[in-house]
Amino acid sequence: MKKIRIGIVGYGNVGKGVEKAVSSASDMELCAVFTRRDPQMLKLADSSVSIFATSDAERMTGEIDVMLLCGGSATDLAEQGPHFASHFNIVDSYDNHSKIPEYLAEINAVATSTTAVVASGWDPGLFSMMRLLSEAILPDGKGYTFWGKGVSQGHSDAIRRIQGVKNAVQYTVPIKSAIAAVRRGTMPKLDMRRKHLRECYVVAHPGANKSDIERKIKTMPNYFADYDTSVKFIENDELLSDHSKMPHGGVVMHSGRTGENEHMIEYSLKLDSNPEFTGSIMVAYARAAFRMASEGIFGAKTVIDIPLAYLSEKDRLELIRELL
Amino acid sequence: MKKIRIGIVGYGNVGKGVEKAVSSASDMELCAVFTRRDPQMLKLADSSVSIFATSDAERMTGEIDVMLLCGGSATDLAEQGPHFASHFNIVDSYDNHSKIPEYLAEINAVATSTTAVVASGWDPGLFSMMRLLSEAILPDGKGYTFWGKGVSQGHSDAIRRIQGVKNAVQYTVPIKSAIAAVRRGTMPKLDMRRKHLRECYVVAHPGANKSDIERKIKTMPNYFADYDTSVKFIENDELLSDHSKMPHGGVVMHSGRTGENEHMIEYSLKLDSNPEFTGSIMVAYARAAFRMASEGIFGAKTVIDIPLAYLSEKDRLELIRELL
Repeated sequence: MKKIRIGIVGYGNVGKGVEKAVSSASDMELCAVFTRRDPQMLKLADSSVSIFATSDAERMTGEIDVMLLCGGSATDLAEQGPHFASHFNIVDSYDNHSKIPEYLAEINAVATSTTAVVASGWDPGLFSMMRLLSEAILPDGKGYTFWGKGVSQGHSDAIRRIQGVKNAVQYTVPIKSAIAAVRRGTMPKLDMRRKHLRECYVVAHPGANKSDIERKIKTMPNYFADYDTSVKFIENDELLSDHSKMPHGGVVMHSGRTGENEHMIEYSLKLDSNPEFTGSIMVAYARAAFRMASEGIFGAKTVIDIPLAYLSEKDRLELIRELL
Repeated sequence: MKKIRIGIVGYGNVGKGVEKAVSSASDMELCAVFTRRDPQMLKLADSSVSIFATSDAERMTGEIDVMLLCGGSATDLAEQGPHFASHFNIVDSYDNHSKIPEYLAEINAVATSTTAVVASGWDPGLFSMMRLLSEAILPDGKGYTFWGKGVSQGHSDAIRRIQGVKNAVQYTVPIKSAIAAVRRGTMPKLDMRRKHLRECYVVAHPGANKSDIERKIKTMPNYFADYDTSVKFIENDELLSDHSKMPHGGVVMHSGRTGENEHMIEYSLKLDSNPEFTGSIMVAYARAAFRMASEGIFGAKTVIDIPLAYLSEKDRLELIRELL
């Protein structure tokens, strides 16, 4: 069997996660990594893999089966997605929820002879699938998503932009009593403050006004103002030693009824490394993209459009025999 | 919008569950129930629904969009599945795991202009989907399925066949310490005895030899011999009042690694009524069967072949906007 030839665009945390996941897939090989940095500066786990400038990628049409776009949604993907999808089968983990319909339409317009799997992380992604599945089965019900405990890059970045802040890590923490209330089947109404806490570990520049920083964090609209937020100032050494991992996770719950009978569906993830797990999901969907493209199923797809059988190395009958 | 016209074949517990679920679906209507009993003897929740003899079903081609086969796997479905699939789009919850490939092939051979969704309960069904999804994402890992606490009809029936037994209910009980061990990420090897307990509530006929019954239960091969089994003799009144509900549930766990990082995926169900939840799943897949048939996608399908978007009343873009 010829292996599926994978390209990685963007060698950050997710790109490294994809690299690891591809190495665990016996039906794939990593052919090239594309970077906007100086290719000479990158060190890959497997030194036999080629490194190119992102701008050279177009020349590789025909040598890469699926390009995995591993950049950030806001800046990288908005531009790279449509560009790459017109030349390659792609997978990304675009996660700007509100802009997905627009992004999807843009990709779909150019993916006339390619297959593009968009927003294939765990939220959006796996969690979206669970919300859909639960709601379709128990329409007389209510769904809840809790995130964490885990590091939110967006919130950490927001703190780092405050004057006087040298470094920061923000944990999103689900409130246990809220999860317990949902589990009891009472279908509570929960506003944002009752679902999650925000824990901030902040390194201040010498001489910075800490109480001013704390006030700016706690009152920051959208990010923190609607939550109970704790701020702890620590030294940079402690931040690096105790808070440099990227754990995450969460739970999708659905409390539903059939007449007088109550049912509870829960899907939970506990992840040591958010980017490595995201990379692993993307690699499974790269397999799907490759297969769909081979069957002439082109265009922009999401996790809700793709049969699960496409994700596995095993063939359909093997899956039916072993897992059904 | 024209509603999807549903037929129910077999008005037992699952059939009644389907009836309830259809009444919660605004895009469906229950048109007819087919029974092998005297149609006069059946009382439906909605008295305007027609009741026919199962043998008359063939005449209804063109009046029913999807037939939901609600009989048992061993006797009813083995015969009804292939018969109905040659005339109608069908959904069933065939659950004889080891015979699914054979049954699927048989249905597929006749479903040349119909769509047949086979084995669409929660196990096989939802749990199969979770096993596949987890394994595809984290191939360097190990999956576990725990069932219960819940009533196993097969095990209850097995006890009832013992001489001297008037009635019996058997609960499958997952062993908490085993679940905890999996959750710790140690990927333990668990034989059957370490995963589940079997709790039996038995009503004996007057004068029956209880210790003989207990011994026969505990040594019964396949069903009980490989488990720690408890047997409690109770009166029939207590059995009817305390053990006549059909709760069930379980959890699919997958413990996996990406290099040195560990991840845990869990999918759990807590169901007040096993047959009503199963009926609700079948109704969601009836929607899928109807849509696939409308698109000319014929043949025997399973939950791993069907994109999730087909299950929802909402259209694809609405789902993407709301749930992705």
